[in-house]
Amino acid sequence: MDLAERILAGDVRAAARLMRMLDDGDARAAAVMSALHPRTGRARIVGVTGSPGTGKSTLIDALIAAFRSADRRVGVVAVDPTSPFTGGAILGDRVRMQRHATDAGVFIRSLATRGRLGGLSASTGEVVSVLDAAGYERIVVETVGVGQDEVEIVGQADVVVVVVSPGQGDEVQAHKAGVLEIADVLVVNKADVAGADRTARDLHLAVDLAAARAKHPKVLRTVASTGEGVPGLVAEVERLLAEMDREGRSAEVARARTEAVVADMAAAAFAARIREVMASDPAVRDAVDRVHRREAAPRDAADLLAGRVVAAGTHGGGQ
Amino acid sequence: MDLAERILAGDVRAAARLMRMLDDGDARAAAVMSALHPRTGRARIVGVTGSPGTGKSTLIDALIAAFRSADRRVGVVAVDPTSPFTGGAILGDRVRMQRHATDAGVFIRSLATRGRLGGLSASTGEVVSVLDAAGYERIVVETVGVGQDEVEIVGQADVVVVVVSPGQGDEVQAHKAGVLEIADVLVVNKADVAGADRTARDLHLAVDLAAARAKHPKVLRTVASTGEGVPGLVAEVERLLAEMDREGRSAEVARARTEAVVADMAAAAFAARIREVMASDPAVRDAVDRVHRREAAPRDAADLLAGRVVAAGTHGGGQ
Repeated sequence: MDLAERILAGDVRAAARLMRMLDDGDARAAAVMSALHPRTGRARIVGVTGSPGTGKSTLIDALIAAFRSADRRVGVVAVDPTSPFTGGAILGDRVRMQRHATDAGVFIRSLATRGRLGGLSASTGEVVSVLDAAGYERIVVETVGVGQDEVEIVGQADVVVVVVSPGQGDEVQAHKAGVLEIADVLVVNKADVAGADRTARDLHLAVDLAAARAKHPKVLRTVASTGEGVPGLVAEVERLLAEMDREGRSAEVARARTEAVVADMAAAAFAARIREVMASDPAVRDAVDRVHRREAAPRDAADLLAGRVVAAGTHGGGQ
Repeated sequence: MDLAERILAGDVRAAARLMRMLDDGDARAAAVMSALHPRTGRARIVGVTGSPGTGKSTLIDALIAAFRSADRRVGVVAVDPTSPFTGGAILGDRVRMQRHATDAGVFIRSLATRGRLGGLSASTGEVVSVLDAAGYERIVVETVGVGQDEVEIVGQADVVVVVVSPGQGDEVQAHKAGVLEIADVLVVNKADVAGADRTARDLHLAVDLAAARAKHPKVLRTVASTGEGVPGLVAEVERLLAEMDREGRSAEVARARTEAVVADMAAAAFAARIREVMASDPAVRDAVDRVHRREAAPRDAADLLAGRVVAAGTHGGGQ
C-alpha cells in the first residue's frame, strides 16, 4: 500500500509521516495530497480561539473527551504557540493531554507559527485535509485570538467557538481582535471565578449591539477543569452543524474553504518565487541597493521584482 | 505645499492624512510614499513585544516619556490588537496615553490586524516610513508576541525588547513563540510582584543555554507603572543602537528592512491580483468548483490561478 492508501485506511503513523513531509517541504507530498483529496470533505471543523490564559486548552481537552464518548474520531490542530498542545512537554508540567495519548481515535498536531513556507493558513489547511482523509470526523483548530492569520484560519471553520475568561479585560480583547464578529458560540470559561457574571453580561451586550449581523452567538458558561457546562457546549456545536446542513450553508462554507486553500496555494507559490528571485537575481539585488541608498523608491524595486517573478513563472518555473 | 512637503515639514495632520489614504488603499498614496522615500532612513526602530497582560503598553508609555525628556520625537505603531493604544478608548478606561495626547512630539498610530490588503508587515513598514519622513527619531513598534506576522514585523526593528511578567507561564510562552531568539533586551516587567525572581532566573537560564547564538540579551527588571527601571531600559536601548552604529550593523539591519519592504510590496501586488482573478475569472471559478466537487485536486486549480495571475501581469496589469 502506498502512503495515501495507508492514510485512507486510518494508519496514524502514515498520516504523521505525510505531515512531516509537508513540514519539510518534501516535493513528494503534493502527489499524496492530490491522491487524498477525493476522500476529503467529510470532517466538520470546529475553530476554538481565545487569548492565552482563558483555559482554552483545558476546554479543548474536555471537548475531545465529549466527542470521544459520542464515538467520534477527533483531530486537533494547535496553531496557538502558547498552547500546551504545541510541545509544552519540553518544559515539564504543561501537557494536560496525556490521557488521550494512547487513544488512536485522537490525533493532535501542532503547527509552528514562524517561518512556515507558504503561510500559516496554507499549512493549517493541509493538516486539516490529511486528518479529514484519515477519517477524523471532528477537527478542532485551536488559535490564539489575535493576529491576522489566526483570525482568518479560525474563520474558515464550520463553527467558531470564542473563549474568554473573567477579568483581565478578555472580553475587551475579544472585541478588538475582531473575533466577536466571527463567533458562532461565545464561552465564558472559568465561570466559577469572580467576575464571570460581568463578563457574560458584557458579551451579551456586545452581541445585542450587533444584532443586525447575521450571527447571533449564544453565550455559554463552562468550567473546563471540572467539565461543567461542556456537554451544553458540545450540544450547541452539534446543533449548529446540523442547522448548517439543513439550511444548505455547510456546502457554502466548504466552498469558501476550498477557495481559500486554492488562493493560499497560489500565494505560497508566488512567495516562494519572490524569495528565490530576491536571493538570486543580481538586477533585483541592485534595485534593492538603490532603494537602500535612497536613489530609487521601493515601488520601483518591487515592480522589477514582480516582473522577474512573472518572467520566471512563464518560463515553466513554479514551486 | 503638496502632501509630501507638508509631511517633511513635520505637519502632523498631513502625516495622518497619508496614513488614512494608505488604509483606504487610495492609489494616490503611492506617489506620496515615493516622494518621501529619499528623506527616510534616519529613524531608529524599537520593537516591543510581549503577551497580553505583561504591562507592555504601560512600559511603552514610560518609554515615550523617557525619550521625550531626551528631546526626541517619538512615533508609536501599535500592531497589538489588545493594546490600549489601538482604540481602547471606545470601551472607557483603557487609554493610559492621554498625557501625550497634546504633545506634537508624539505620534501614535494603531494598525488593525485583520483584512489588511497586502499584509500586516507591509502596512507596518509604510506607517514606519511616514513617521520616519516626518522626523520621528524613535519609532516604537508594539506587537503581541505571537503570530507569524507579528514576530516577523518586530524582528525587523533595530532593537527588539521582549517583555514578560511574573507567573502565568509568560516566560514559557516567550520560548514557544520564538521571541527569545529575536530579543536584544529581555524585560521582566511588574518586577515588584511575587515570582519575578523566578521569571528572571528562567530567562537568564534560557539565555545562557543559547549562549552560542549571536545575541546575548540582558535581562532587565522594570515596574512600568511607577517608572522603576525604565531609565535603565532606555539606556540599554540607546547603548545597543550606538553599538550597532559602531559595528556597522545598523546599515545591515536597514538593508534587510528595505529588502523586506520590497518583497512585501511585490507579494501584496500578487495577493491583490490573486483576489481579482479569483473573483472575476470564470475558468478559475470552474476549477475551484471542480476541486470542491472532488473532481480535481487543489493543486490543479492553484496552478491555473497562478497562470492567470501571471498572464494578467504580463499584459501590463498589476497594482
